[in-house]
Amino acid sequence: MRRIAVINGPNLNLLGSREPDKYGGETLEEMNARVSRAAEELGAACDFFQSNSEGEIVSAIQRASDADGIILNSGAYTHYSIAIRDAISAIKTPVVEVHMTNVHAREEFRRVSVTAPVCRGVIAGFGAMSYALALRALLNRE
Amino acid sequence: MRRIAVINGPNLNLLGSREPDKYGGETLEEMNARVSRAAEELGAACDFFQSNSEGEIVSAIQRASDADGIILNSGAYTHYSIAIRDAISAIKTPVVEVHMTNVHAREEFRRVSVTAPVCRGVIAGFGAMSYALALRALLNRE
Amino acid sequence: MRRIAVINGPNLNLLGSREPDKYGGETLEEMNARVSRAAEELGAACDFFQSNSEGEIVSAIQRASDADGIILNSGAYTHYSIAIRDAISAIKTPVVEVHMTNVHAREEFRRVSVTAPVCRGVIAGFGAMSYALALRALLNRE
Amino acid sequence: MRRIAVINGPNLNLLGSREPDKYGGETLEEMNARVSRAAEELGAACDFFQSNSEGEIVSAIQRASDADGIILNSGAYTHYSIAIRDAISAIKTPVVEVHMTNVHAREEFRRVSVTAPVCRGVIAGFGAMSYALALRALLNRE
Amino acid sequence: MRRIAVINGPNLNLLGSREPDKYGGETLEEMNARVSRAAEELGAACDFFQSNSEGEIVSAIQRASDADGIILNSGAYTHYSIAIRDAISAIKTPVVEVHMTNVHAREEFRRVSVTAPVCRGVIAGFGAMSYALALRALLNRE
Amino acid sequence: MRRIAVINGPNLNLLGSREPDKYGGETLEEMNARVSRAAEELGAACDFFQSNSEGEIVSAIQRASDADGIILNSGAYTHYSIAIRDAISAIKTPVVEVHMTNVHAREEFRRVSVTAPVCRGVIAGFGAMSYALALRALLNRE
Amino acid sequence: MRRIAVINGPNLNLLGSREPDKYGGETLEEMNARVSRAAEELGAACDFFQSNSEGEIVSAIQRASDADGIILNSGAYTHYSIAIRDAISAIKTPVVEVHMTNVHAREEFRRVSVTAPVCRGVIAGFGAMSYALALRALLNRE
Amino acid sequence: MRRIAVINGPNLNLLGSREPDKYGGETLEEMNARVSRAAEELGAACDFFQSNSEGEIVSAIQRASDADGIILNSGAYTHYSIAIRDAISAIKTPVVEVHMTNVHAREEFRRVSVTAPVCRGVIAGFGAMSYALALRALLNRE
Amino acid sequence: MRRIAVINGPNLNLLGSREPDKYGGETLEEMNARVSRAAEELGAACDFFQSNSEGEIVSAIQRASDADGIILNSGAYTHYSIAIRDAISAIKTPVVEVHMTNVHAREEFRRVSVTAPVCRGVIAGFGAMSYALALRALLNRE
Amino acid sequence: MRRIAVINGPNLNLLGSREPDKYGGETLEEMNARVSRAAEELGAACDFFQSNSEGEIVSAIQRASDADGIILNSGAYTHYSIAIRDAISAIKTPVVEVHMTNVHAREEFRRVSVTAPVCRGVIAGFGAMSYALALRALLNRE
Amino acid sequence: MRRIAVINGPNLNLLGSREPDKYGGETLEEMNARVSRAAEELGAACDFFQSNSEGEIVSAIQRASDADGIILNSGAYTHYSIAIRDAISAIKTPVVEVHMTNVHAREEFRRVSVTAPVCRGVIAGFGAMSYALALRALLNRE
Amino acid sequence: MRRIAVINGPNLNLLGSREPDKYGGETLEEMNARVSRAAEELGAACDFFQSNSEGEIVSAIQRASDADGIILNSGAYTHYSIAIRDAISAIKTPVVEVHMTNVHAREEFRRVSVTAPVCRGVIAGFGAMSYALALRALLNRE
Repeated sequence: MRRIAVINGPNLNLLGSREPDKYGGETLEEMNARVSRAAEELGAACDFFQSNSEGEIVSAIQRASDADGIILNSGAYTHYSIAIRDAISAIKTPVVEVHMTNVHAREEFRRVSVTAPVCRGVIAGFGAMSYALALRALLNRE
Repeated sequence: MRRIAVINGPNLNLLGSREPDKYGGETLEEMNARVSRAAEELGAACDFFQSNSEGEIVSAIQRASDADGIILNSGAYTHYSIAIRDAISAIKTPVVEVHMTNVHAREEFRRVSVTAPVCRGVIAGFGAMSYALALRALLNRE
Repeated sequence: MRRIAVINGPNLNLLGSREPDKYGGETLEEMNARVSRAAEELGAACDFFQSNSEGEIVSAIQRASDADGIILNSGAYTHYSIAIRDAISAIKTPVVEVHMTNVHAREEFRRVSVTAPVCRGVIAGFGAMSYALALRALLNRE
Repeated sequence: MRRIAVINGPNLNLLGSREPDKYGGETLEEMNARVSRAAEELGAACDFFQSNSEGEIVSAIQRASDADGIILNSGAYTHYSIAIRDAISAIKTPVVEVHMTNVHAREEFRRVSVTAPVCRGVIAGFGAMSYALALRALLNRE
Repeated sequence: MRRIAVINGPNLNLLGSREPDKYGGETLEEMNARVSRAAEELGAACDFFQSNSEGEIVSAIQRASDADGIILNSGAYTHYSIAIRDAISAIKTPVVEVHMTNVHAREEFRRVSVTAPVCRGVIAGFGAMSYALALRALLNRE
Repeated sequence: MRRIAVINGPNLNLLGSREPDKYGGETLEEMNARVSRAAEELGAACDFFQSNSEGEIVSAIQRASDADGIILNSGAYTHYSIAIRDAISAIKTPVVEVHMTNVHAREEFRRVSVTAPVCRGVIAGFGAMSYALALRALLNRE
Repeated sequence: MRRIAVINGPNLNLLGSREPDKYGGETLEEMNARVSRAAEELGAACDFFQSNSEGEIVSAIQRASDADGIILNSGAYTHYSIAIRDAISAIKTPVVEVHMTNVHAREEFRRVSVTAPVCRGVIAGFGAMSYALALRALLNRE
Repeated sequence: MRRIAVINGPNLNLLGSREPDKYGGETLEEMNARVSRAAEELGAACDFFQSNSEGEIVSAIQRASDADGIILNSGAYTHYSIAIRDAISAIKTPVVEVHMTNVHAREEFRRVSVTAPVCRGVIAGFGAMSYALALRALLNRE
Repeated sequence: MRRIAVINGPNLNLLGSREPDKYGGETLEEMNARVSRAAEELGAACDFFQSNSEGEIVSAIQRASDADGIILNSGAYTHYSIAIRDAISAIKTPVVEVHMTNVHAREEFRRVSVTAPVCRGVIAGFGAMSYALALRALLNRE
Repeated sequence: MRRIAVINGPNLNLLGSREPDKYGGETLEEMNARVSRAAEELGAACDFFQSNSEGEIVSAIQRASDADGIILNSGAYTHYSIAIRDAISAIKTPVVEVHMTNVHAREEFRRVSVTAPVCRGVIAGFGAMSYALALRALLNRE
Repeated sequence: MRRIAVINGPNLNLLGSREPDKYGGETLEEMNARVSRAAEELGAACDFFQSNSEGEIVSAIQRASDADGIILNSGAYTHYSIAIRDAISAIKTPVVEVHMTNVHAREEFRRVSVTAPVCRGVIAGFGAMSYALALRALLNRE
Repeated sequence: MRRIAVINGPNLNLLGSREPDKYGGETLEEMNARVSRAAEELGAACDFFQSNSEGEIVSAIQRASDADGIILNSGAYTHYSIAIRDAISAIKTPVVEVHMTNVHAREEFRRVSVTAPVCRGVIAGFGAMSYALALRALLNRE
């Protein structure tokens, strides 16, 4: 059974209460459960991690170097964390960058991702479904 | 049955022969057939269009205003065609921008998409699978 | 009788259905008819052309080199088409650039016109009336 | 009878003597008289004001808050006076920005207008006729 | 008794009628009266000055060189008046820059203050209370 | 009794020993005590938190979502932490950004605050008094 | 016999009538005839194509993938057509970019070529002779 | 006898008291007297004008259109007043831009002069002597 | 005996496994041991610290304020951590910035160091030897 | 017989040994001999000069003011030597700028030529053949 | 008798033949003779030096460290030679930067002087008279 | 015995007299002697070269292509000499860039090195010791 690490960054622990019109009313736990079930259907299992700390996300990526894939939503760190970028480069596990919102439709500074160039690909704009699509991409299941 | 328009831009007619290590050896027809089958499985049908001309892509988007969704790979036009952006804004059909390659990992000028801000979301980096994932996103089928 | 070419660019064929709160509910045909009547009152006649294609707009400008004036709404191409700019420079017919909306009040990228420097003047922000005012400007009828 | 305030900025008092090949040989008084007649024909009356001082232009705009429209040629201030911009925003009277020359065909710094985004529209490049066209635009008389 | 000069710039004379949802419904006179009372409670007196003219604000700052402090709201001039900046540098009186709105939450060009670097400090975003807080800052009364 | 969270960022734990000519000789504890007394006089109470870690500041802001206000000195993070910005946006508690020094009078990169646009207001340049003024602003006590 | 495709872009169909002091009085047909003769002398033959449309130029480049070389004057598209750049990259035929005028001596925006980096080389400034020199370069005949 | 207009801009009325280590201890009146004597020795006479207002400087330049030369120290306006630049362009009188300090050795923003391109020349860095040298330049007296 | 703190930032804990052709095959522990021996030979001792967290690096620098020197490899934080820069400024201990790779020969964004301006000096490009050279620099032992 | 000066800049004396895969294995002397023979065939003679010094290249261009043409490869100086640019402007001899490599396909900074705007034209990317083509261009021999 | 070093940079040896409408018809020798006579009248003597080489200008400035002043026209090097800037900083002799033309009225890149910030002052735009005025400035003779 | 070329650029011949608080009181000869002794201790010998001329430094680097290493302090040329960069690229000898001062702590323009990307590494900020450390780096002697 393949294992996928799902790593969420700053403020994603607030899902459900944070700007629900933008992020939906589902909590992170509920969303994780849903992603977990989707993984099971595809014959895989997920490990979930969330942190507001850039350094802990770096460490989580390092620890996931033996997973079969990483789904990474670095939140705000997407736009400036070269440390997270370096962590992705330092391991061989494929990483898919996901965003719940269409980051290109928001503030100008959210249009630049310093991590995307070292990821396998990017999926943005589909809410919780972004994670499920990333699962399929990593598991190569159209 | 829901209908999805799949619109491909310049040089995508060369798929199979163009830089196969970057874009794969499958031709556009083969890829379209594969996307078509995936759509059928999800209870939808696809209309395919390809053009090297910016203006024809604009017109194709306008014509697809009664489809249930558009999968759009504008190719190079992604990075400068405000005309295509305006066509997307002018209709109500949801549009998902797709790229076969991870555009963020290529030349600097490919990191800016002028169309993404008016799309529903973006999926990039998964080759032909990008289209299949976009199908799921538009059909809301995780 | 003087002849004025009225050339409209991408997505202007959608007038009436496209974002009516921004562009009004009048179709392109209705607007053209109105401009035509205004021309007649001023003792002139109009030729109308619309295309979503940059290249066809270039060709239309070339063909209008024997008109007494050109009213040009290049739409999105206004902001990047050096090809259209070169076509304007290549002929001697005076060209007035028009926009239905006040382009300065919209996205930042709409504030730059690459064609305006080679036009006679610019009129923007008055909806369909922009065309009528351009007619007067070209016919020198205050 | 509707009233239109015509406000001219720095160096426009020199009309007639200043670079006549660019601005024509008509003085400001002569041009005002001509605009006045055009207004009468359209059933309106004009109040004229000219100042070289940014602050006085701000005050003139404030005073014109009960006019039916303002024709504003801020001259050089167009390109940097946020104070004038704020005055326009602070009142409800529609303002049309006019320029005698095609500002886009001159120095690079003249291509940016800080006031245009808060105006109704812009008319540039038609000499004294720019004012007459603005009158029509404000009075909604094609 | 210490004396504080309160200097307000362009368009602040419109307080009460200008965009009341942004600036409140209180007029400048009413606000001045309130600041005056606050000053009295803190054992100080205020001199009030308002002008739409950059040059008069420069002169007012020069005249206030013998005050115990200056509360300065340069309005739009904040963002480009090096002349006002130089006036502040030329005197020894401490100056506190105030803004009623949070200028950082508005247009991009309002985020730069050319005067702030030569002021004692900046207080922005608290409506009329910004002045009262500046009073306390200048009088060193927490 | 209203509760105000006072959150201090990196290196502010060094107050008293760090560049005393710039930040004063008072330690963070002493300053907190002073702010606490000021709060009491105004009928409020303060909770103090300091961390050098961006992630912990994000978490502290999240925890303070039920406070009546937050006084936030993000220190160096002010200039690049979109994560902290997002935390402020994610809660409804009003936040006042404070700085002890006049950040505009220091290095160029300190003039940009990525957090200010989502705060209620900004107070900078008054040393420890900046906190006391922020208290008044949050408690609406001139 | 080697075959060289000569592809000309927008407004080059106006040669002879367009700004003759800049481009000379020779028409495109006359120039093509001259290039054809030069090719014959070097034992090669030329296929000529001109279009004002970016998309058709893309297609023409694709069709020329079996030629021995391409002489490409993209005209205005040189400066922004990533679509043409991608077409050049997609084929293996060597491409020489030519310009009749010295593009570096004209407007600033003409100094950037987005296609040059994927061409074999660039020849600019020698009028019709630029094509003849490109022929020699492609045929390796000094 | 030739007449030279000496026009001084904002804050130069403070000479003698303003930052004496930068501008010297001489007042504007004393400096003017000295320049007057130097003019007399060279067979010319000076008219002096100082204002803190940009608009009044514009007007002063216009009035000096019949002088034999203008010595202009626009102070801070040097760096942004296109209005003053336009006034210089509008008259035929030669203008020499002077600065007491070496503006290039100060803040970055003082290195740009928007007026210098339309002046005859620039003299900066020699205190009051800058004016005397400008006199010689205008009178062509080495 | 002098004490030197050696502080390593994000991803340096992966030394040995991370891109060995760039960083070598030696682990961080092995490298530390080697640096330790080098220090002993020079009559000094080293304290080693590594963290992926920006905040912990800030704290480590603060704690090292009583060391005789700090060797700091901030890794990716070098390029954006103003917090680390401020920690260096806040203490008096001399800091030498080291990098194993020649950061100037990598991505453009690695060429800017926000910490270097407040360090004693910089040594980059010599792998593990960079640390040994920094030791000598701090101990003033050529 | 017409005389052409061939001027080569810094590091071109290393031809043959310097990065042979980029510049070929031919030495400068061998290449010069080949260019000489090509000139003879076209009825012209060449004078060759090479220097690593910007100043000597300036002097060589000045000395060649009586030649019938100059072939100039300024090497690295192409990208920043305004002194060489001024030398070209100061003489009337036509100058053709040549490069052996396609400078547009290399580092970003090699895409700007400060000398090209004052040359007759530019030929780049054809190795030693670039010189032969420049000969033809200068001698007007297709 | 005070000694002034007059150092001229690249292409100034061409004076008289180089663009005479811009630089006049006087040769460098004639101009030097005139400057020499002016110096004598003021009780000083001049040493003249000209070179096209940046390095020789650096050396000339170093050698002039015992002169009473330097008049420096670095020509094109003005705009990029940090080496010349450093030479000026390295000596204590006051340096006046001169230009014959008004560099601000020419190409954009001539508006930046990297040497001016370390000079005493700048005189530009007065042809040969610029040198005479600089002499007076250095000798403090109005 | 290994041979190291030590190449110093402009104004380093002034060491000892030039800004001694920044560069120390030791002359270049004294410093060279010290570096020479250090080399001997490490079993190597040094060849010293200094020039103010960019071209001579290029030539010196070329000549040192058979040395075992080059220690290069290009002084001001570090920041703009692509010619020196190309010379370094053209040879195989490893080059270490050194600076006596911490260039990052000085003017903004000194923070960019155009030569560093093609060097082995960089050592800056340790005065004369920078050279000794570079020796060790080149000789691989910790």
